[in-house]
Amino acid sequence: MTNRKEVAKLAGVSEATVSRVLNGIGPMKESTRQRVLQAAKQLNYELNAVASSFARGRSGNLGVVLPHVPKVHLFSTYYFSELLGGIGEAVHSGGYGLLLLFRDPTVVYDYVSLYRTQRVDACIILGSSALETEKTAVHRLADERLPYCVMDQRFDHPQLSIVAADHEQGSYDAVKHLIERGYRKIGFLNGAPQYSNSEDRMAGYRKALKEAGIAEDDTRVYQGNYSRTSGKKAASQVYRDLARLDAVFVSNDRMAIGLMQGLRELGCRLPDDLKIVAYDNSDAASFTEPALTTVKVPFYEMGRLAADRLLKQLAERDRNDASAEPIREKLRTELIIRHSSGK
Amino acid sequence: MTNRKEVAKLAGVSEATVSRVLNGIGPMKESTRQRVLQAAKQLNYELNAVASSFARGRSGNLGVVLPHVPKVHLFSTYYFSELLGGIGEAVHSGGYGLLLLFRDPTVVYDYVSLYRTQRVDACIILGSSALETEKTAVHRLADERLPYCVMDQRFDHPQLSIVAADHEQGSYDAVKHLIERGYRKIGFLNGAPQYSNSEDRMAGYRKALKEAGIAEDDTRVYQGNYSRTSGKKAASQVYRDLARLDAVFVSNDRMAIGLMQGLRELGCRLPDDLKIVAYDNSDAASFTEPALTTVKVPFYEMGRLAADRLLKQLAERDRNDASAEPIREKLRTELIIRHSSGK
Repeated sequence: MTNRKEVAKLAGVSEATVSRVLNGIGPMKESTRQRVLQAAKQLNYELNAVASSFARGRSGNLGVVLPHVPKVHLFSTYYFSELLGGIGEAVHSGGYGLLLLFRDPTVVYDYVSLYRTQRVDACIILGSSALETEKTAVHRLADERLPYCVMDQRFDHPQLSIVAADHEQGSYDAVKHLIERGYRKIGFLNGAPQYSNSEDRMAGYRKALKEAGIAEDDTRVYQGNYSRTSGKKAASQVYRDLARLDAVFVSNDRMAIGLMQGLRELGCRLPDDLKIVAYDNSDAASFTEPALTTVKVPFYEMGRLAADRLLKQLAERDRNDASAEPIREKLRTELIIRHSSGK
Repeated sequence: MTNRKEVAKLAGVSEATVSRVLNGIGPMKESTRQRVLQAAKQLNYELNAVASSFARGRSGNLGVVLPHVPKVHLFSTYYFSELLGGIGEAVHSGGYGLLLLFRDPTVVYDYVSLYRTQRVDACIILGSSALETEKTAVHRLADERLPYCVMDQRFDHPQLSIVAADHEQGSYDAVKHLIERGYRKIGFLNGAPQYSNSEDRMAGYRKALKEAGIAEDDTRVYQGNYSRTSGKKAASQVYRDLARLDAVFVSNDRMAIGLMQGLRELGCRLPDDLKIVAYDNSDAASFTEPALTTVKVPFYEMGRLAADRLLKQLAERDRNDASAEPIREKLRTELIIRHSSGK
């Protein structure tokens, strides 16, 4: 591997001069500059990417900030793996690197410093929540007019960049499907409350019940945290309430799979004893027994869309053509009917 | 955000001088240097991370090179998601960023340039194959004594850094389990031949048959590519041969799930009509019907181990204490017995 020393020797200058020429720093006699560039070329000395990024003010990386949760295999959840897959697709096409940065979800994250220290040119925030500290951190990104996008978390501010899915609509469709099949005693196993995802599902559930003239009943609402274990845990409560439940709407496939496992262990026959509609349409949904009726969310497309839009913003900035338009996208979901919701 | 201009103004020097001081480039009067550092400190001006990396010769990133395959949602496969999860865990603990770099698997990849351009300090290669061009590319990394690790691909050279699992042993255990249950007509659905993973599974399958005095029969060996679709495709061939098959050993869970789906659609009852042992112990293995008997591979631990060892090598290099020892680890697998292999 050619090093700076060899270039300096061939060009007859100091190593510092080589650096200054190649990094475009400071004044330099044109003849010296040419001699260094010539020597570098002759020796096939690549302009160091970091130095060159420094000159351009660019890292060539799209950052993805995601929560680090001990013992949780995050990448093995359909939600994160599909979002990352879509982001990866866009980043690959755009010739960027994808820099994954893990954060402790209990600590306020300084997103802005990622840009200031030039680790990323833009970033996508996964697993964001509605916590006040998170809101403040995201607002700072917007105030600084940095290219960023929050994924699948609603903030009630029209100037924030967000790509999300319409979970209220998706949840409404799920519950309406159960009502149309003649079920009226419909429970709801929701995920953790700090995500707008969970709020939106609750809103959709309520809307469908209300429209059908079914009274809400809080004792039929169960609380999980989107994990399979939490679904399995909820099984004993659901089993206890089985006499006053026709069906349960579950906020994601993982919890639904845990719930079904738990219920089966307690002796339930599915879907005969309880109809279930889940959410996500993960790979697993099609090979559980019974196969899951579930709401398909276009996570992959959401990831790709967010990354594509950010890379476009970066290209516009390069042309000094930066628009101040925030990214605002809400993608539609689709109900996939299989056997868990009955015949 | 404080910029270079403000620091320059306060210190009474040019912006170029600020850059040269903060990047440690070129000669500089000590009094000027102190003035600039004082001004930067007073204005809370962070030393640019890229510039600082350049000074240290470090990016702060561990690279993970992985194949880009159009339309394949790679992160949603248990294999890649768990390996990445383990790598992410180590990288998070070590304070590094994880830079994902996608490669076209049909094009020779110049791993060395990732270091030369300082995009990564070390790298892990996922989805590597036994192709001659790939061997050459990996050997170059070893020749240059760069910190790298190949994941789960065997190369017959003792000086290459590799973390793998013992797939010959795992496959032997799987087939032996079927033999011990009294099955002798054992088929084998293998993955794509360019991976040592597939060769090793074949070796384990053959070893178990030979030991039990069962003659090999090539007409019972089927070819897939580790995808669910390829497993489903193989179902029609397996179905045709059902009379001369007691059981099939399948090289991963995804293909096994596809095979089971396909067989069921053709009217098979499982596990009554055919016993199956799969490989990986993915999440899905426990909730298929019947649940899969499968070989558990510690992918997460493999990823974490490789990344930990590389970060350790980097720390040693910082102390000029670099050992030339390659990373050589082969982790054990474990047979998990469920219902797909019979009662």
